[in-house]
Amino acid sequence: MILHGYWRSTATWRVRIALAYKGVEHTVHPIDLNAEGGDQHRPEHRRRNPMAQVPVLELEAGDDPGAPAFLGQSLAILEYLEDRFPSPPLLPGDPLGRARARQLAEIVNSGIQPLQNTGVVRHLESLGVESAAWIRRHVGRGLAAFEEVAAPIAGRFSVGDQLSFADLVLIPELAFARRFGIDLGGAPTLLRIEAACLALPCFAAADPLRQPDAPREPAG
Amino acid sequence: MILHGYWRSTATWRVRIALAYKGVEHTVHPIDLNAEGGDQHRPEHRRRNPMAQVPVLELEAGDDPGAPAFLGQSLAILEYLEDRFPSPPLLPGDPLGRARARQLAEIVNSGIQPLQNTGVVRHLESLGVESAAWIRRHVGRGLAAFEEVAAPIAGRFSVGDQLSFADLVLIPELAFARRFGIDLGGAPTLLRIEAACLALPCFAAADPLRQPDAPREPAG
Repeated sequence: MILHGYWRSTATWRVRIALAYKGVEHTVHPIDLNAEGGDQHRPEHRRRNPMAQVPVLELEAGDDPGAPAFLGQSLAILEYLEDRFPSPPLLPGDPLGRARARQLAEIVNSGIQPLQNTGVVRHLESLGVESAAWIRRHVGRGLAAFEEVAAPIAGRFSVGDQLSFADLVLIPELAFARRFGIDLGGAPTLLRIEAACLALPCFAAADPLRQPDAPREPAG
Repeated sequence: MILHGYWRSTATWRVRIALAYKGVEHTVHPIDLNAEGGDQHRPEHRRRNPMAQVPVLELEAGDDPGAPAFLGQSLAILEYLEDRFPSPPLLPGDPLGRARARQLAEIVNSGIQPLQNTGVVRHLESLGVESAAWIRRHVGRGLAAFEEVAAPIAGRFSVGDQLSFADLVLIPELAFARRFGIDLGGAPTLLRIEAACLALPCFAAADPLRQPDAPREPAG
């Protein structure tokens, strides 16, 4: 398998955590979203993903009966990995627990990230919208909802004590929120979950600054 | 079960199709997104869903060991229904097929709909952005990507001949696209899938104009 992604992309980061947690052997192929014109828009990447986004999981011969294939959309990739490599699991053992993990993951995946991704923010800026305020509003609102849904059901992680998709999307989004100066003081549950996650080796392995395409010096 | 939703919400519409296809008994509670101030923002709805969005599936005593519970995010609700009522299925039988169905569903769920939902569009308008052009751009781009991914794998439906989440999100989005005058001539695969879907009773039952909160005369 080949993971086509970008070191600082929050959606790529989710998939990196899953691959590390499940111990799935893979190689990494960086796509530079900050290159002139954006490497995600180049024809060879559009063939992988017509949405011109990362991550893309490339299935090579032997990986899947349907390979070769390119798989886009981070949540679909997480579900595929869970389907193919169920142990260790990234979803709870009961239907409502699984639904909660997916609900929380979607609060970020469809409720926050699409409004702050690179393409949308650049388009907004081209229309004269002050993007920092836009980002703070939508990220802040989504994380507040995540906190409210998670608070009564969280244990060590977002859904009880089972690491799940919810945690894999939460941790990158919290890092994104900090980059934009969003106050996380009203989200004690999220900060507690974050501390538990960051103690796990799979989160350390997936850290953006440890990726091959990360700048040698931490970015500002 | 109670489905809290709105007749014209594309995300509610997806869940209606699934409930009809699987024959899941439920009642409908309309949330009027167009009421003064928006009924989705009222305290009783924010308790159901802190994102202040529809749909919400309310699980009542007897529906689930964890009931009572409110479940938000349409894709999480679809997964829950698939989990609890696996027959008839709404996902293909093989992992890559399931991944494709989810990838296509996410192209709409996270790639299009968040950029055209009521709250975001109203916010954009308050910032002086011409929303019709914004909507046409993002819906057009997402549906073009859906066409490109689906064309080589579609049969009668988006993923071979198995009705799936991909079709449940596609059909409402095509209707939305037409309301905004988006040309679908470049998407022959989508139009063919749409015709196959609209011939099914579950799509007829889920039609917005057949819902209890729809206006008596078709909306313009």
